[in-house]
Amino acid sequence: MSTLESFLCGRWVSGAGRPATLVNPSTEEPLAEASTEGLDFGAALEHARHRGGPALRAMTFGERGALLKSLASAVHAKRDELLDLAMRNGGNTRGDAKFDVDGAAGTLGAYAELGASLGDARALLDGDAVNLGRSSRLAGQHVLTPRHGVAVHVNAFNFPAWGLAEKAAQALLAGMPVITKPATATALVAHRMVQLLVDSGALPDGALQLVTGGAGDLIDRLGSQDVLAFTGAGSTGMMLRGKVNLLAASTHVNVEADSLNAAVLGPDVERGSDTWDLFVADVVRDMTQKTGQKCTAIRRVFVPAAMLDAAQEDLADRLSACRVGNVLADGVTMGPVSTAAQLRDARAGIERLAASGARVVLGGAAAVQGVGAPEGKGYFVAPTLLRLDDNTRGDDVHEHEVFAPVATLIPYGSVPEAVALVHRGGGSLVSSVYTDDRAVAAEVALGVASSNGRVCVVSAKVAGAWLGPGAVLPQLLHGGPGRAGGGEELGGLRGVSLYLQRTALQGYGPLLEHITAGARRVG
Amino acid sequence: MSTLESFLCGRWVSGAGRPATLVNPSTEEPLAEASTEGLDFGAALEHARHRGGPALRAMTFGERGALLKSLASAVHAKRDELLDLAMRNGGNTRGDAKFDVDGAAGTLGAYAELGASLGDARALLDGDAVNLGRSSRLAGQHVLTPRHGVAVHVNAFNFPAWGLAEKAAQALLAGMPVITKPATATALVAHRMVQLLVDSGALPDGALQLVTGGAGDLIDRLGSQDVLAFTGAGSTGMMLRGKVNLLAASTHVNVEADSLNAAVLGPDVERGSDTWDLFVADVVRDMTQKTGQKCTAIRRVFVPAAMLDAAQEDLADRLSACRVGNVLADGVTMGPVSTAAQLRDARAGIERLAASGARVVLGGAAAVQGVGAPEGKGYFVAPTLLRLDDNTRGDDVHEHEVFAPVATLIPYGSVPEAVALVHRGGGSLVSSVYTDDRAVAAEVALGVASSNGRVCVVSAKVAGAWLGPGAVLPQLLHGGPGRAGGGEELGGLRGVSLYLQRTALQGYGPLLEHITAGARRVG
Repeated sequence: MSTLESFLCGRWVSGAGRPATLVNPSTEEPLAEASTEGLDFGAALEHARHRGGPALRAMTFGERGALLKSLASAVHAKRDELLDLAMRNGGNTRGDAKFDVDGAAGTLGAYAELGASLGDARALLDGDAVNLGRSSRLAGQHVLTPRHGVAVHVNAFNFPAWGLAEKAAQALLAGMPVITKPATATALVAHRMVQLLVDSGALPDGALQLVTGGAGDLIDRLGSQDVLAFTGAGSTGMMLRGKVNLLAASTHVNVEADSLNAAVLGPDVERGSDTWDLFVADVVRDMTQKTGQKCTAIRRVFVPAAMLDAAQEDLADRLSACRVGNVLADGVTMGPVSTAAQLRDARAGIERLAASGARVVLGGAAAVQGVGAPEGKGYFVAPTLLRLDDNTRGDDVHEHEVFAPVATLIPYGSVPEAVALVHRGGGSLVSSVYTDDRAVAAEVALGVASSNGRVCVVSAKVAGAWLGPGAVLPQLLHGGPGRAGGGEELGGLRGVSLYLQRTALQGYGPLLEHITAGARRVG
Repeated sequence: MSTLESFLCGRWVSGAGRPATLVNPSTEEPLAEASTEGLDFGAALEHARHRGGPALRAMTFGERGALLKSLASAVHAKRDELLDLAMRNGGNTRGDAKFDVDGAAGTLGAYAELGASLGDARALLDGDAVNLGRSSRLAGQHVLTPRHGVAVHVNAFNFPAWGLAEKAAQALLAGMPVITKPATATALVAHRMVQLLVDSGALPDGALQLVTGGAGDLIDRLGSQDVLAFTGAGSTGMMLRGKVNLLAASTHVNVEADSLNAAVLGPDVERGSDTWDLFVADVVRDMTQKTGQKCTAIRRVFVPAAMLDAAQEDLADRLSACRVGNVLADGVTMGPVSTAAQLRDARAGIERLAASGARVVLGGAAAVQGVGAPEGKGYFVAPTLLRLDDNTRGDDVHEHEVFAPVATLIPYGSVPEAVALVHRGGGSLVSSVYTDDRAVAAEVALGVASSNGRVCVVSAKVAGAWLGPGAVLPQLLHGGPGRAGGGEELGGLRGVSLYLQRTALQGYGPLLEHITAGARRVG
């Protein structure tokens, strides 16, 4: 069995101690081992701070964009190999694997273009210069410059390729060196990706390091110029954000956590219309793509009470066609969840939702024999639709995410009631409203905005072009308030700003112009 | 003795239990009492969320700007009364008091103008719409809308008027109701200000509440749509930010903490030049204004080694003219620190700096009899200049702020060495460089930017117009990384964005235009 090494201080190294075992979640066959015990994370941080940081800061945004372009090419060149690893180690169907791997290359490419558009700049101007006195002698100018520390990225198991790439793209473009830590259970893809990126020769020494396995004391060693970006369970994000050294140093921490994303079917939408079909397709896609293991997936489906039966019927009909099993077997359309722990949590979660007032109308928590999987093996969950008839009940439906192919149908009476129900999620990455009524679109979109990082307005006009709310695009903000972690990633330069310090320069106007000559105006 | 009431749920109320006593720090005479024990903060939060929030969100930015204008007028109309309270309860000289009270009215006025400039908008557009596909059908548009919670403001003892006003201006302009809590020891000014603001009749019910005394369980009751903004000691900021409910709900917390702000005298500056004089004036002003109790005050003074004796001589000469005493007595130019605890901390801090390698060259930790103060009474500290000859020593000089009229002179060899020494502060609100050499200005300003929220470039060209680095302006960012708390206030709309949720809207382009019609493009 192969051992997955970490890449620290310019070398591939392996830890001592008892390793973790990575398996194929369709079959439970072991695939590889990884350990980081005894590795020197202090040295890795210093390597990033003293080699990677200065090298990246010496480059212009344009040069860092070119670096990202090389990385995108390196990923794309080995696409098939990465897809194969994702299918074996992640339980991804080939379509799921493309979503992850192509998303990685695409996001690197988008930030490469953004870098190119910023050209020779090494600093960014945040807004225009402002006069501070009656004369123009005294001026102010806000600038953005790279933080002088390390960006530590702790990624989730569900998107090993994209998670690594989207975070690295933003930090590297800003001029910060990266230490990336994929979730160990599905680290094969991230490990191979870092091999490819390192072998590309495009990266300055110390610009990218990889931790394959436990993070040891890495996080405990971060300080005021460092950044921690985490994607994963809210409870882990809370634990990380509460670390004393991070609180003491005001270390910038970005958290993207699972949330109870909502879909609202407008009262105007008729069964069988284009907009109805978009709604059904989105809910089904979000439940089954990646076996429902997307932080952006729809979990709460709000439907006008009169349409609840029809919605249930059409969703159940489509979901019943899903073939659950070994992703390498013919005809399988949905794989397993990624780990044994996820399987346990999913089953317990379905039971918890049911106990809180919802009832299972399709699927459920029972064991599933996957098509093409060894008898009794593999972490399979049936697509599971629940229904909460009394929308005043079911606190858990709004508060407990089941990270699996699970969603709950909930009726509503009026549009304001639907808006209030969306807010009960306590903060989401994304919510969507399906309507062709402009007034409903505006009422829901603006009404739920304060609880959401992104709001999709889905109407018949976008049929054919629509990718669903679960697709995260580099141009748009990814992150949300409250339960979703309160973070902001992507959205073009918005996510890059996590790695930049905003500073107001104050002084004689022409002198400030001299100091900031070559900086690029943004925002 | 008068009792200072809190203003909660539209009524002036007082707590039970043993009250805190507010004193005159020049004489130690009791002035008033305050207690919040038993007050219902849960009801106050609900009042803000259900009355103040909806009322403010129903207003346009322009209407909220007009509200701020009324508040500015209310403060200005009672300026003399507020100055008198600040002198008696804060130990402020009349000049110090003006700095606080006029700063309050000025900041309210600046945000009133900003609101007027945003006119009829209720939402802001963050950047332009972007196309998301090959056609223009699918578009994205980032919007900023008010969070649906409460802004809780915990302010420092040193700027009771300005602290209240600058935070309230930003939150109210954003459309969030405020519960403001001044430091109890110097709450007379804030208490009177809220009386004036309430009596102005300009505030919607629930838009502004006041806690005079302990905060009880107020902070423990905050959730995902609320905001906490704190100014004060870093240790308190850390404690607040680490509260489990805030971590769990990803509540947005902004911290402005004391920091070790630096001044760097450029190697080109000759003794007696205009720039030299600006440097000496700034250090002396920052040490003595507000008795050195400004979070932006210069604490570390970096001087070319060859100029160290001259700088010490000129600073000591100016500081020796300072007359410390009862601010109501004739000829007094510097008052006491504000509390007995501050006095203890200041004396202990001077001794700590001295023990870390610096030596006292003026003033010191000994007791001071204030001019015009009762024998042995009042919290007086002598202006105290230290000198650290060996700049490789003195960790405490870079890490321990003495919040009093205290600064340390430190020699440097080369400009890169000066830049590295500035970074040793671990993050500051503001640093300044005094130079007429453009290359030095650029090297220091951009070199220290990542450790500073603001950098002042002070040259002969600004003589006459210059206010010093300690003056915080509404147009420029206030806040800094690391030790300074990692927060961002002011800077025009930058500080307002703490109270706004950024949301990406995604859908059919013309429909998004309809939804955001009337919103104002910013950033």
